[in-house]
Amino acid sequence: MADDRGNVDTELLDELRQALADGTAERVRYRIGALHPADQAELLRFLEPHERRALVEALGTALDPEFLSYIDEELRQEIAASLGPELVATALAELETDDAIAFLEDLDDDLQLQIIAALPATERSEVERSLQYPEDTAGRMMQRAFVALPDYWVVGQAIDYLRNHPDLPDDFYDIFLVSARFEPLGSIPVSMVLRSGRTTPLRQLRQRELHVIDARTDREDVARLFRKYGLVSAPVIAERGRIIGVITVDDIVDVIEEEAEEDFLKLHGVSESDLFRPLRRTALRRQPWLLVNLGAAIMAALVIAQFEGSIDQLVTLAILMPIVASMAGNAGAQTMTVCVRGIATGEITAQNALRFFRKELAVGLANGSTFLVVGTIMVMVWFGYPELAVVFGGALLAALSVAAGIGVGVPLILERLKADPAIASAVFVTTLTDMFSFFVFLGVATLVLL
Amino acid sequence: MADDRGNVDTELLDELRQALADGTAERVRYRIGALHPADQAELLRFLEPHERRALVEALGTALDPEFLSYIDEELRQEIAASLGPELVATALAELETDDAIAFLEDLDDDLQLQIIAALPATERSEVERSLQYPEDTAGRMMQRAFVALPDYWVVGQAIDYLRNHPDLPDDFYDIFLVSARFEPLGSIPVSMVLRSGRTTPLRQLRQRELHVIDARTDREDVARLFRKYGLVSAPVIAERGRIIGVITVDDIVDVIEEEAEEDFLKLHGVSESDLFRPLRRTALRRQPWLLVNLGAAIMAALVIAQFEGSIDQLVTLAILMPIVASMAGNAGAQTMTVCVRGIATGEITAQNALRFFRKELAVGLANGSTFLVVGTIMVMVWFGYPELAVVFGGALLAALSVAAGIGVGVPLILERLKADPAIASAVFVTTLTDMFSFFVFLGVATLVLL
Repeated sequence: MADDRGNVDTELLDELRQALADGTAERVRYRIGALHPADQAELLRFLEPHERRALVEALGTALDPEFLSYIDEELRQEIAASLGPELVATALAELETDDAIAFLEDLDDDLQLQIIAALPATERSEVERSLQYPEDTAGRMMQRAFVALPDYWVVGQAIDYLRNHPDLPDDFYDIFLVSARFEPLGSIPVSMVLRSGRTTPLRQLRQRELHVIDARTDREDVARLFRKYGLVSAPVIAERGRIIGVITVDDIVDVIEEEAEEDFLKLHGVSESDLFRPLRRTALRRQPWLLVNLGAAIMAALVIAQFEGSIDQLVTLAILMPIVASMAGNAGAQTMTVCVRGIATGEITAQNALRFFRKELAVGLANGSTFLVVGTIMVMVWFGYPELAVVFGGALLAALSVAAGIGVGVPLILERLKADPAIASAVFVTTLTDMFSFFVFLGVATLVLL
Repeated sequence: MADDRGNVDTELLDELRQALADGTAERVRYRIGALHPADQAELLRFLEPHERRALVEALGTALDPEFLSYIDEELRQEIAASLGPELVATALAELETDDAIAFLEDLDDDLQLQIIAALPATERSEVERSLQYPEDTAGRMMQRAFVALPDYWVVGQAIDYLRNHPDLPDDFYDIFLVSARFEPLGSIPVSMVLRSGRTTPLRQLRQRELHVIDARTDREDVARLFRKYGLVSAPVIAERGRIIGVITVDDIVDVIEEEAEEDFLKLHGVSESDLFRPLRRTALRRQPWLLVNLGAAIMAALVIAQFEGSIDQLVTLAILMPIVASMAGNAGAQTMTVCVRGIATGEITAQNALRFFRKELAVGLANGSTFLVVGTIMVMVWFGYPELAVVFGGALLAALSVAAGIGVGVPLILERLKADPAIASAVFVTTLTDMFSFFVFLGVATLVLL
């Protein structure tokens, strides 16, 4: 079992590997049978593909259904293929709809259809209905089992109902009050019900606010709502306002982690974590971004090419120009990162964007002034050429200020154009800061020095 | 009130600003009094500093204590100063310990002490005890109000106890069973208690697993534990195993968001979101990173300086060298991002690191080979100089392969040295890929072409 920091118990891992190599399924099951399914799933990360296959085959029908809900996204396809559609379907039928959907939605279409076909009728229809909602929407995240009671009941009735219906979800945090048409009217934390006398009307325990989520809401917006109001669960409604499911905060934790990860990775041209993806697909997936980068780098090189004659006359320019570009690129990246993140968290909107733009420009000017001094002294010491030193320092000031503007401007413009600022900003910012840096440094140097 | 996407109601905002400008506190209170405290706090983002001050003064004692728990981290100091220690203390006394601590811990020492001194005795001692735990540990995150019952009770006893103790926390998700020494023995979801008959022994409802958190555990590890096992709440224990508080999943949501944000921002030399930080402090905070970057850029420039003579003979080298560096930098950043993220999520550990290293090297070689072809053709078309084209293509292959190795190696080495891979990796990776790119391209060009 792994500790809190994700370090796995090496002894267990070695023994497990030995058992897998020997091919004795019983020993494998004995080794990991007592582990929490989350720990079993975590072990998969440390095994080679053929060992993973052996492990899954050894588990076979002894598999805890919960195991499936803990498997890393990148490994789901592989594990599902090893288990086969029948076994997967049997296990998924035991899970809540949201966990079943999460496992199914990233599988290849073929395998997904085979598994769905193998599900029992009730679960199949629930899964199919959830899959009708677009990916990354509330309809896919919700579980279809929840507790909804008429709003004219009292606590005693609620408790008796709950005691007599063993088919209700194992675990729930809020009880929803609904109208005769099954529209949600309010929510009550379970602990409030437990603490109130049997004769207390449920209506009296209703929370002041009810945050209802449309099934078509994007999951990022759902996460924002949960975070903003500190929600634990919220009802999901279909077209006519009928409650059809519930989203709980534990699903939100995953969304926040995944969305933050996406933003983090996208900024550098990695579409999603490809740690466990096969080599060839990893390489292919990263190529488009490298191609875009090549195009961007050529643009910057074209700017340099305009000043070929100047470099020919003063080679020192070729030594110093990457420094200007690097500084501007870094300043632009700082500003861009804050801005992309601010847009993602909703802290920057159209209404306060101008304020941040002005502020970042001022920050760029301030830091540019510092590096005007630092850079001038540096070149003076290095090359002992005062005019060049001043040109270099001045270029730094101009480049850092403009870079700040670019760093805010690019994500905001992309957001306005409905493009994803996280994915495209980095390459635009780098290209623009490179081009401007080369242009201003080589241009002014040509005018002043040559 | 802002919608799900963080866009604020412009009309409300305009009216509020008008009321703030007029200085009529009643109108301000009327405008925003009916809003959810989370929405009130959100409005602060859209106001200028003097408007924020006017708003807070207008709210005065009419302030909903919950308001404080929703204020953006960067604005807490400012708002606390406007409100004054007395008002803040009165409001904080109404909040759970974890929310009070979250508000207090980032304030300047002076103000923090004044507020703590103004707290009622019980709350003051609770806050002081929590503050004794280091920042970012479980001891700071937990709330001190929880429900712990003897493990020999039955459901009926539990319900009666809960009904007769109105001083218990408003909202809780698990009941903890404790020994006579107050050591946690198990947990029961509240919904299970509600669904069981009065004579059911609590022991029988106990969950299979109990995840206990030491008060000194780092919050990142706490978040990982919650995520891994899908926990909703977990008991926090002090030195001798006594339960002293509880951490709930809503606090985890904030931790995950904040930690992901930190990783995201740190990678580009922004220590934390400085959206709302004053101009001068923002500029100063970003300078150290720019200075480090300057040092790094000089290192790369020194490599170029070694080949001054070569560039003097063939200026085209100065045009092409930034392209090689840019491609290698990009490939290195892709690999580094995946690796930094993998380390942060615990997916990469010492035990499987070598596997990722080999894989990334192979990815680098694969993409390097592609760009060997692409780059050679490009330079051939651009400059019509076959030898230069081959040198350029070869340099791309070498640079992309080595960059992949650097991208994995740097974060892993930093992690091994107990440095934070997220903060320092970017600058090391860029510097190393730049230096290698310039060296291999200019070096081979000098040998082959000149």
